[in-house]
Amino acid sequence: MDPKNYQLSKGAANLKYTDLLPHNDSAFPVSKEFLQKVVDILMDFIRETNDRNCKVLDFRHPDEMRKLLDLEVPDKGVELQQLIEDCAKTLKYQVRTGHPHFFNQLSCGLDLMSMAGEWLTATANTNMFTYEIAPVFILMETVVLHKMREIIGWNCGDSILAPGGSISNLYAFLAARHRMFPGYKEKGLHSIKGQLVMFTSDQCHYSVKSCASVGGLGTDNCVEVPSDKRGRMIASELERLVIERKSKGDIPFFVNCTSGTTVLGAFDPIEDIANICQKYKMWLHIDAAWGGGLLFSKKYRHPRLTGIERADSVTWNPHKLMGTLLQCSTIHFKEDGLLLSCNQMSADYLFMQDKLYDVQYDTGDKVIQCGRHNDIFKLWLQWRAKGTDGFEQHMDRLMELSEYMVKRIKEMSDKFHLIFEPEMVNVSFWYVPQRFRSVPHSPQREKELGKICPILKGKMMESGTLMVGYQPDQDRPNFFRNIISSAAVRESDIDFLLAEMDRLGHDL
Amino acid sequence: MDPKNYQLSKGAANLKYTDLLPHNDSAFPVSKEFLQKVVDILMDFIRETNDRNCKVLDFRHPDEMRKLLDLEVPDKGVELQQLIEDCAKTLKYQVRTGHPHFFNQLSCGLDLMSMAGEWLTATANTNMFTYEIAPVFILMETVVLHKMREIIGWNCGDSILAPGGSISNLYAFLAARHRMFPGYKEKGLHSIKGQLVMFTSDQCHYSVKSCASVGGLGTDNCVEVPSDKRGRMIASELERLVIERKSKGDIPFFVNCTSGTTVLGAFDPIEDIANICQKYKMWLHIDAAWGGGLLFSKKYRHPRLTGIERADSVTWNPHKLMGTLLQCSTIHFKEDGLLLSCNQMSADYLFMQDKLYDVQYDTGDKVIQCGRHNDIFKLWLQWRAKGTDGFEQHMDRLMELSEYMVKRIKEMSDKFHLIFEPEMVNVSFWYVPQRFRSVPHSPQREKELGKICPILKGKMMESGTLMVGYQPDQDRPNFFRNIISSAAVRESDIDFLLAEMDRLGHDL
Repeated sequence: MDPKNYQLSKGAANLKYTDLLPHNDSAFPVSKEFLQKVVDILMDFIRETNDRNCKVLDFRHPDEMRKLLDLEVPDKGVELQQLIEDCAKTLKYQVRTGHPHFFNQLSCGLDLMSMAGEWLTATANTNMFTYEIAPVFILMETVVLHKMREIIGWNCGDSILAPGGSISNLYAFLAARHRMFPGYKEKGLHSIKGQLVMFTSDQCHYSVKSCASVGGLGTDNCVEVPSDKRGRMIASELERLVIERKSKGDIPFFVNCTSGTTVLGAFDPIEDIANICQKYKMWLHIDAAWGGGLLFSKKYRHPRLTGIERADSVTWNPHKLMGTLLQCSTIHFKEDGLLLSCNQMSADYLFMQDKLYDVQYDTGDKVIQCGRHNDIFKLWLQWRAKGTDGFEQHMDRLMELSEYMVKRIKEMSDKFHLIFEPEMVNVSFWYVPQRFRSVPHSPQREKELGKICPILKGKMMESGTLMVGYQPDQDRPNFFRNIISSAAVRESDIDFLLAEMDRLGHDL
Repeated sequence: MDPKNYQLSKGAANLKYTDLLPHNDSAFPVSKEFLQKVVDILMDFIRETNDRNCKVLDFRHPDEMRKLLDLEVPDKGVELQQLIEDCAKTLKYQVRTGHPHFFNQLSCGLDLMSMAGEWLTATANTNMFTYEIAPVFILMETVVLHKMREIIGWNCGDSILAPGGSISNLYAFLAARHRMFPGYKEKGLHSIKGQLVMFTSDQCHYSVKSCASVGGLGTDNCVEVPSDKRGRMIASELERLVIERKSKGDIPFFVNCTSGTTVLGAFDPIEDIANICQKYKMWLHIDAAWGGGLLFSKKYRHPRLTGIERADSVTWNPHKLMGTLLQCSTIHFKEDGLLLSCNQMSADYLFMQDKLYDVQYDTGDKVIQCGRHNDIFKLWLQWRAKGTDGFEQHMDRLMELSEYMVKRIKEMSDKFHLIFEPEMVNVSFWYVPQRFRSVPHSPQREKELGKICPILKGKMMESGTLMVGYQPDQDRPNFFRNIISSAAVRESDIDFLLAEMDRLGHDL
């Protein structure tokens, strides 16, 4: 990504934005030259991302980065050639999240179909509130979201794309409250006698707790249900806590069941939780932002997601396991009409009923964002390319690779300490440097191995060859959590990952 | 955009996604051919968007569209050539929101710099939570948001990019509540004795009311303050309503002041409202999602935005007046630290403090979305290209064009009835068909002219030559609201707009 490799023609290099469309009517050729040069840079980035001989990143500390790059936004605009160099430099120092050796996030990989879709989305540059200004994209949403509800197991309902799983979870919370206490929308807290309480496991995504804060319940009224050693909610504990809160006069109304926790990739027991929700008349939301993709797999869907059709709402992020580009998150409701009645503010001036076409396609009044980014086309195009079968194969392959990784770790148990066999593609383990290999495993050793994580991660980033995440949890000090969610990963990449960690960490 | 014009080579046409990167290591050439073909389609779309001889849209009703397009997501993925045709067909029926004759939304235009930025953003495909995985983009956020705060008039504070102005307004509401009632985050409603009340004008964006619903106050506790005939909040009415609510024992805490209303483009009187906020110790939020861009203009900033620096928080959407691609919305706070203390849920497992680098750059814990789309690069690159001066010229030009339109409408007062001289680029008027031209203006004529709006709009869409929005408001039946926010618009386009409306509407 050497910025010097991308030279505009002499006639174009010193031009400015005012020499391009739409400022200059005859500027299509030079506008095209400029955009094509940006595309050339992107093509090279894509090639390097897929080249195992290229690094994952060229790490620089913030202060150094500020010196290497001219980040200032100037008073006078710069010339086209400078903008081309800006683009090249930006990518030179960007982390290649699609590299086969990037295992750091729940969203890894660079799906080219989805990317092509996002390029088109940018050029179409439209807002998703009405059929009037986004006719094709609105219809695509209808088709794809209907298909996703079918996969969940519903032949009814309603859905919407939201800017990330956290906002999707917020939609579920709001719909539940609205469904159960219709006066709340207008009257607020005074319409309910008693304290609303929600429940979620101590391993859930923090956005669930955030709903309690945003929604005015307060986080003290988002009760954390203990989980077992593998990170799954203990259903009997849920029931105990519901009873406890009810006996205080509180009103339990909402349970979040996580299907695929962030750290351990655990699946809460849906059926048991659904039974409790039924018994105590609580809304069941399933946060399958992470694990939802496994719904495609006949092999892995059960028992992990068995019973998901019993939920009232489901969050499912295609931008995670399915590899759709960021962002693409969906929220689904079993009951149709709720999104509209919960969120509409009757903005007649925006969503008129006297239009030329059937206004049931207008989505603007169903959402809390008003304008929405077009997050559907990248998913639609990808689905056209892969087919439903292609997603199933992708899921099975990710799980297979994770099983391979677990097997290799167990074979190298002197160097790696597996925390447990995961239910998903999150593989949790400690790396064991030479000096700890003869020490028997104990809480004290765990503590020492925990201290190794940030140091080894720092070495990965400085060498630029590998990225794997680490974090502590309630029961353990820092440990590594490896994610396989990229279609670029092969068995040989997992071998590389383990060898590279050993190379960098051996003497720590 | 004839799909037949875009043919892949014989060797590539029948391939499938599995023949491309990352599935096939040697597939860079064919991957590049496929992507380049998509780019060719986009280039043609850009050319047509800027060609006044091309239509703005090719309107089809939903049922017809579903027949014209194969929107289904199949079990087996389709071939590359089909995907190329899918892309071409999608754009064939998409509305050209960058066309010089698209005046329909607050976001019009296709800024090529910002678009190039969004292509790069897609390819970089990263999440904005940490410096670790988005180093350059995180620094760009720091630089650009600091600059925007400076333009507001602050040399301190904190800011974040959010998915649209509605969520930005929600951030302000949450921060205000947290700042004034720190216990609310944990304790919820029980920590406050009395009903929280917020105030906004009856012309505000509906997302402000939505905050009251989402946040648990209830929309009845979002008090609508009357506005004058030009859509500006009446400050004395605000004070009266605050006193009224206080006398009931309620707690007024938040005032939303709109700088650029959606329909009329009105600016609430900031100084008067700020004085009242100061007097009654209420948070002052300014929703300048729409009008914020005028801050760049020495000529038009005052008196519209005079006093904005007195606000506690400001929403400002570059994707509106500034022409940045969708979405790009910012929320700014005068007080630093609030975003973090309000929104952090202490997800230590995601935002560790023991990293290689200075973690103050990690933004993940400040936001309610967890993962965030990269909305900065398209704005940064655009700013580099235009410079601050370029934005100022853009604002002055948009206002000049609006003034030109007002002048032309006044010159043709038989055919067009101007509602009033606007403060911004929203020009509100009725079109007067032949048969009403000799009728004196009256409430009855307004009603008749209002009925013309949807019919004339339908004719615009069917002819595909023009798009202008219409809506009713509290005081008036349907009327047209024309928006000039695209850099593509010239005086001659406004002449065309008026002539075309007359051509289509003359005999209605």
